[in-house]
Amino acid sequence: MMNPLKGIIPPMITPLKSNDELDRDGVEKLIEHIIGGGVHGLFLLGTNGEGPSLSNRLKKEFLKLSCEVVKGRVPVLVGITDSAFSGAMEIAEYSKSVGADSVVVAPPFYFPANETEMINYVEKLAAATPLPFVLYNMPMHTKINLTIPTIRRAKELGCIGVKDSSGDMANLYMWIDAFKEDQNFAVFAGTELYLPDAVMGGAHGAVAGGANVFPKLFVDLYEAALKQDLPTINKLRDKIIWLCNTMYVVSPSAARITISFKTALSLLGICSDEMALPLMKLEGADKEQIATYLKEMKEFI
Amino acid sequence: MMNPLKGIIPPMITPLKSNDELDRDGVEKLIEHIIGGGVHGLFLLGTNGEGPSLSNRLKKEFLKLSCEVVKGRVPVLVGITDSAFSGAMEIAEYSKSVGADSVVVAPPFYFPANETEMINYVEKLAAATPLPFVLYNMPMHTKINLTIPTIRRAKELGCIGVKDSSGDMANLYMWIDAFKEDQNFAVFAGTELYLPDAVMGGAHGAVAGGANVFPKLFVDLYEAALKQDLPTINKLRDKIIWLCNTMYVVSPSAARITISFKTALSLLGICSDEMALPLMKLEGADKEQIATYLKEMKEFI
Amino acid sequence: MMNPLKGIIPPMITPLKSNDELDRDGVEKLIEHIIGGGVHGLFLLGTNGEGPSLSNRLKKEFLKLSCEVVKGRVPVLVGITDSAFSGAMEIAEYSKSVGADSVVVAPPFYFPANETEMINYVEKLAAATPLPFVLYNMPMHTKINLTIPTIRRAKELGCIGVKDSSGDMANLYMWIDAFKEDQNFAVFAGTELYLPDAVMGGAHGAVAGGANVFPKLFVDLYEAALKQDLPTINKLRDKIIWLCNTMYVVSPSAARITISFKTALSLLGICSDEMALPLMKLEGADKEQIATYLKEMKEFI
Amino acid sequence: MMNPLKGIIPPMITPLKSNDELDRDGVEKLIEHIIGGGVHGLFLLGTNGEGPSLSNRLKKEFLKLSCEVVKGRVPVLVGITDSAFSGAMEIAEYSKSVGADSVVVAPPFYFPANETEMINYVEKLAAATPLPFVLYNMPMHTKINLTIPTIRRAKELGCIGVKDSSGDMANLYMWIDAFKEDQNFAVFAGTELYLPDAVMGGAHGAVAGGANVFPKLFVDLYEAALKQDLPTINKLRDKIIWLCNTMYVVSPSAARITISFKTALSLLGICSDEMALPLMKLEGADKEQIATYLKEMKEFI
Repeated sequence: MMNPLKGIIPPMITPLKSNDELDRDGVEKLIEHIIGGGVHGLFLLGTNGEGPSLSNRLKKEFLKLSCEVVKGRVPVLVGITDSAFSGAMEIAEYSKSVGADSVVVAPPFYFPANETEMINYVEKLAAATPLPFVLYNMPMHTKINLTIPTIRRAKELGCIGVKDSSGDMANLYMWIDAFKEDQNFAVFAGTELYLPDAVMGGAHGAVAGGANVFPKLFVDLYEAALKQDLPTINKLRDKIIWLCNTMYVVSPSAARITISFKTALSLLGICSDEMALPLMKLEGADKEQIATYLKEMKEFI
Repeated sequence: MMNPLKGIIPPMITPLKSNDELDRDGVEKLIEHIIGGGVHGLFLLGTNGEGPSLSNRLKKEFLKLSCEVVKGRVPVLVGITDSAFSGAMEIAEYSKSVGADSVVVAPPFYFPANETEMINYVEKLAAATPLPFVLYNMPMHTKINLTIPTIRRAKELGCIGVKDSSGDMANLYMWIDAFKEDQNFAVFAGTELYLPDAVMGGAHGAVAGGANVFPKLFVDLYEAALKQDLPTINKLRDKIIWLCNTMYVVSPSAARITISFKTALSLLGICSDEMALPLMKLEGADKEQIATYLKEMKEFI
Repeated sequence: MMNPLKGIIPPMITPLKSNDELDRDGVEKLIEHIIGGGVHGLFLLGTNGEGPSLSNRLKKEFLKLSCEVVKGRVPVLVGITDSAFSGAMEIAEYSKSVGADSVVVAPPFYFPANETEMINYVEKLAAATPLPFVLYNMPMHTKINLTIPTIRRAKELGCIGVKDSSGDMANLYMWIDAFKEDQNFAVFAGTELYLPDAVMGGAHGAVAGGANVFPKLFVDLYEAALKQDLPTINKLRDKIIWLCNTMYVVSPSAARITISFKTALSLLGICSDEMALPLMKLEGADKEQIATYLKEMKEFI
Repeated sequence: MMNPLKGIIPPMITPLKSNDELDRDGVEKLIEHIIGGGVHGLFLLGTNGEGPSLSNRLKKEFLKLSCEVVKGRVPVLVGITDSAFSGAMEIAEYSKSVGADSVVVAPPFYFPANETEMINYVEKLAAATPLPFVLYNMPMHTKINLTIPTIRRAKELGCIGVKDSSGDMANLYMWIDAFKEDQNFAVFAGTELYLPDAVMGGAHGAVAGGANVFPKLFVDLYEAALKQDLPTINKLRDKIIWLCNTMYVVSPSAARITISFKTALSLLGICSDEMALPLMKLEGADKEQIATYLKEMKEFI
């Protein structure tokens, strides 16, 4: 399959009709919308996918449907992060059974594991998972920052890459450097604003949430970075800066970006804007604000 | 049943044979050990119970067995905290079916909910839970601090009490004051060192982890607080201070206290010391250290 | 002199006419107001005294005047905390020259010193200071939490006490226990809400900011704690809880309590309400709110 | 003078013979070493310059000597950050009197000012400072993050630029975008690892601590960024990554980088390695380790 991972791999939102009911039509339309933009993979059930908020029953229905719709056009990565190891493994097994390519694991997020505990966790994970795995650094939500020794141990045990959503570009450069000898081990950026810098500096690609709504914008930016085309990079990054100052800050929620994506996709007729608890959808003037912002971005949809 | 909750309600550890296998003999012995110490209730599947690390299958087996063993001698409270609302509700339903008395809910712990989201969550919870509920403040693990307006709204919707494990005694005093008009609404302390102050200041009791190993010590301390017997209070608190400087700090883990409890209970022949991932049990010299400390506390076992 | 320190030692605010001009009349009236309430000492130039915001020139004028007004009626402690060691020593020397009794030192607050650096700092301080010194734990502003080994080393070198403004009562109990063998070494609480618990648990007293405005309230509470008079304790603590919910939360500033004190003292005709930069005084409706709250507390002024 | 600021402006360390004694020879040699590397300005008395740890007397001696040595060859910027406004203004006045070009101000760092307080502070500062000023964002030490509205207000009042040492590249991109219309307003990066990305993305330059020891390395990197010469950028950045993994992490201090610089400069015979309290110099094996690392970098000295 995908060895190494590379390019734009959107962390797809999970279309819902209600807290525990899938928006099946939405899933189909959204996958076509995103793949239509030229992305290089799909990452399901991550933070933007509200993975930790969903029941295993719904996760399975969603994974089966998504793999059927994708039909192998791009690699499918599945977030299996769960505070319970057994829950994570249940989704890993199911992911393999429906044809997904890889699983993505963030640290278990209730108890903040120290480095020794995290390495032990990775060892148990590597022994039990039926698919190649990617580590996902998300300290804002998991309270711990993955260390290079942990990642190195994971790599020895079959880990195929790492995604950094710490927001700390210095950290990302340290990781790129630490693993540059093995070009099959993928280092992914999780922050949209420095996606091109990361790629020019040696990252394999980016997990860009905005590609749910504007897949082509991020694919174009990735390609400009591969070509070191700085004028295009600066022009497209200006759009992302604009998004950061507008569409991404409408909601007061800590998950404001995810909420904006679902609202925008709903306004575009692609899928429902229902959120899983504890998140809440935008209403009224907030929703209209997103509509206004969408209009200004219409060349990128 | 228990209206209001009061006294010492230990957050019971969950005896395990391995990551997903219950130590059934251990459960029976441990419940007898704790109830034998005179406690006023049992809180299952909380933080010390490693609730978030366990599969729903194991949780159910554990709840059924525990309720059978308790046989109504004390109220049983069940932690249902889950990052997925549906998972929380599944355990709530099961808790009722096996005869538990109440559920205990901390904020969903992946996305840090803001106050609006938390109030919405409580409303959905109140509508769906089949048992009375208690709110559990645990900012170290859930990243958010419950507010008085959230608790007030929960109380209107049937919440019967709140437990504060923030460690902040000023916060606890503010809560005691905010809810003192309704003596049926229970305010519980989650920090052992100021248990007597909390009770003398108006708290209904404490959820004291150390009561897994030393139930009588905490029951005696609670009773001394009820009697405002300061010499006894200061004498017994000295023991807790000693534990904080010895048995509670052997492991470098963030969950060091829970790990110490399981090790001590294993050394006492009560149950296994296996931990659920990501936690790891103590070995070698660390375990011997716990044995040494236990000997010095033998009058309290 | 005062060996050991004990009782209520208010962290006196510094009356100002403008950012760098002392309100000399205000200083006199305020000292009489506070001493008139029966306090056991005065702590000048601490956090409530805006010490770090004042010029050394103004500090000296203030110290000279204060010592003249106090005339030995109570011990005078002087906060000398400065990010520059030489600045701290300049004020220590001056404090001795005008007859102050002790200096109080928080960690230097720009670079967050680790334990090794902090112990080295204490050694240099002990060698240079001409007066006995007290350590002041204020992690919210200094970014570091003093450790028991650091305090122990300071005690060997002549430190006469420690004040904990961490807000963490468990920490305070650990310190009380660690130093209980030497009753001449004072452990002071910095949090008003658990002042009586601290005293009953072995603390020597409290540095209570509210005693700027309501000295008698805190003196009465201290005496009730010495007598273990719980009904009085709970009645007086209710007043403090009320203050925490009203007068102490009018300003949005991180220094809201200090700002409230100056406003209240200005409304009482005792001194000016000018703040040193970066703090700002209350105006308009906020000031009127303080006036309303003051009226409800008139029995304690 | 320098309008706008641009290029590499090293935050020069302050050579000391002891806590309050200047290493005058060291100052001369160090300035020649740094200017010899082709830098575009000098920033004195910042975080690397241990400004907040030094007496005003020593600061003045240092500023006078430095301006005499520089003799106008490059602009001189002076950090005046002080928890007391009057202390900051005293150094600002003195800076002008000895011919410095600009002052640099971080938020007062004891009380964490909120946005309203910070804007008020900037207004008072702008009215009082006799030199153009630059704002310095250093949340690790000052506890607050400057906001765009605060910077915008400062700019209206004469602020000529801003330096971001938050380490957050997304924040830097937002600031570059917010102020891009006025090319005379300088936006500087404070993080070495993404210096070239920042410059290619529109930043005016960088305040790079490593340029104390390796000025030419950073000047070359800046020039490569201006030319968009990615092979050179990646080659030189690899050196910085190597420094981050070696020389910059020898000390356990929070100020480990500054300590490494002084040690290296002492080993090179340029100036003393004495630190101001609370920092401590490296000794023994740690110092030898720095010597070993220096040898591997000899082509850049």
